Amino acid sequence: MRIAVDAMGGDLGPRVVVQGVLEAARHSRASYLLVGDPSVLEPELRRADGARVQVVPASQVIEMGESPTVAYRQKPDASIVVAARLVKQEQADALVSIGNTGAAMAVSLLTLGRIPGIDRPAIATPLPSLKGTVVLLDAGATPDCDPNNLFEFAIMGAVYAQHVLGVARPRVGLLSNGEESSKGNDLVKRTHALFRQMNGETDFAFVGNVEGGDIYQGCVDVAVCDGFVGNVFLKTSEGVAEMILSLMKQELDRALFLKPFLLPLRPSLRRLKRRIDYAERGGAPLLGVNGVCIIGHGRSNAYAVKNACHAAERALQNNVVDTIRTRIHEALTPPPPV
Amino acid sequence: MRIAVDAMGGDLGPRVVVQGVLEAARHSRASYLLVGDPSVLEPELRRADGARVQVVPASQVIEMGESPTVAYRQKPDASIVVAARLVKQEQADALVSIGNTGAAMAVSLLTLGRIPGIDRPAIATPLPSLKGTVVLLDAGATPDCDPNNLFEFAIMGAVYAQHVLGVARPRVGLLSNGEESSKGNDLVKRTHALFRQMNGETDFAFVGNVEGGDIYQGCVDVAVCDGFVGNVFLKTSEGVAEMILSLMKQELDRALFLKPFLLPLRPSLRRLKRRIDYAERGGAPLLGVNGVCIIGHGRSNAYAVKNACHAAERALQNNVVDTIRTRIHEALTPPPPV
Repeated sequence: MRIAVDAMGGDLGPRVVVQGVLEAARHSRASYLLVGDPSVLEPELRRADGARVQVVPASQVIEMGESPTVAYRQKPDASIVVAARLVKQEQADALVSIGNTGAAMAVSLLTLGRIPGIDRPAIATPLPSLKGTVVLLDAGATPDCDPNNLFEFAIMGAVYAQHVLGVARPRVGLLSNGEESSKGNDLVKRTHALFRQMNGETDFAFVGNVEGGDIYQGCVDVAVCDGFVGNVFLKTSEGVAEMILSLMKQELDRALFLKPFLLPLRPSLRRLKRRIDYAERGGAPLLGVNGVCIIGHGRSNAYAVKNACHAAERALQNNVVDTIRTRIHEALTPPPPV
Repeated sequence: MRIAVDAMGGDLGPRVVVQGVLEAARHSRASYLLVGDPSVLEPELRRADGARVQVVPASQVIEMGESPTVAYRQKPDASIVVAARLVKQEQADALVSIGNTGAAMAVSLLTLGRIPGIDRPAIATPLPSLKGTVVLLDAGATPDCDPNNLFEFAIMGAVYAQHVLGVARPRVGLLSNGEESSKGNDLVKRTHALFRQMNGETDFAFVGNVEGGDIYQGCVDVAVCDGFVGNVFLKTSEGVAEMILSLMKQELDRALFLKPFLLPLRPSLRRLKRRIDYAERGGAPLLGVNGVCIIGHGRSNAYAVKNACHAAERALQNNVVDTIRTRIHEALTPPPPV
């Protein structure tokens, strides 16, 4: 298993990427290709025992603010482009990026192409819930969708839940503004009708519409929505969690004498933080492209990078891309005449 | 000031509505009309000193699951219908409901009509942020919108922020999946262009696209989106807050010996809960209809009902509906030739 990592992306710079990859390599048998500027990456590597970690040179970087498609044309030697090319040319089996998300998506799509039958790709983000992990897709790859796009997302999300999370028959919900089938915007209503019509012919159980709260209660394994709504969902969730933690900090700062009482609570608070922290899940697969591509948060620290690398390993071990290819082919093939 | 309250709605039954209204009346000079079944409401009232609280009989109730438009036709004597009719016939100045939200919207709209020039109504929900209250609209009245709808929402939300929250020149943001003007789904991109074109001619400052987290940081006074996205935003926010509180409780329950350490933290936790609790804000005005209509959460307790009543009083005192009427008229009137 060879995993190509764009080492130049991310808000915290190449050092945390190298640290995360070294940590990932220490705990697995995969070998890693760090793509980027050798004069930056090699000194970082030399400090560590990096037998299964090599540098692949790339002279350019697509920065956070750049337009993905313009940058793709103008920077053929950008680290993300070189990393994707390694996968295309079968010198690597998977791709990990924590840089410009739009660029990672555009470059993967343009370099690796789509799985036949998939119209649009989706980012499948694993989320914490009170009852385990829920996969939300699309988290931002395709802002405007039609019902067929959402149906393809459901097939792909169900494959991920089955093969990576080990759910036998995933429960799939459609994110809506109410649980009744009459609720939704125009897209959700039309998609609901399509799901009802296809149910019975799918490898997942369509449970109907779900609300944001149902996802965090763990009422489904897979939640489907368009990429605009999914992205708003994720950023809103992060925003609420950050606000609550800030307000808690404000409350505690105003009462310094309480500090000693908090000390014994530390392990609990640390466990709580771990259960809601995105870094714990590390990265989200871009499903629908012809290859394993894991997209991490721009703010990833070394720990999150390590977990993104492990997400790539799990996707490879569990044949996620091949299984999606088979399932989509089956869904598109008309049943034989009786 | 006379406020008609649908006393039969709400998940917790008429008793909490009566309690909340009595509490509201005790702290203001408004008088209240409790609309519903006298045999239920009068015994509740008799226990209290309710000089400025009267019962107006209504023999039917629109239940939570009912289709709003069907129920409106079939139940002409439903409490919400009678309450709206009181406003229409100028026997009351405002309407408060914590029942079936769809029914409250449909009945208000059908009975009171729209403000001339307003195409679709919007629910304006006040939200907590690290820097004060932010108004989000639409929170669910109009799931599918066009750019003109969102522009009308901005005008109405700005009036609310100015007149009720006291913000001189409200900062209005468009809820999107990224801050750059290139981000958004098709609707948001077209709306962004319209806002840019109209800016300078408005009583608010358009600050561009905002993300969910920016709202909770208090970077804007008014956040505009379609009713589907707004409703998902709200329910997701509630879901995240509930999950974090559940996880905290789980953590604390697993370590009973920590309980004594928590006692001194109680006032802080209570203050924290108050800052994020919807009950604190009580109710959201349905803007765009020809009259003051406050919609509360179905799960409202007496405290939330009291705050919903106060929201109605504030909207009346600050002439929100008349000001919206004037502003929309101005926005629709072409400037005089120079």
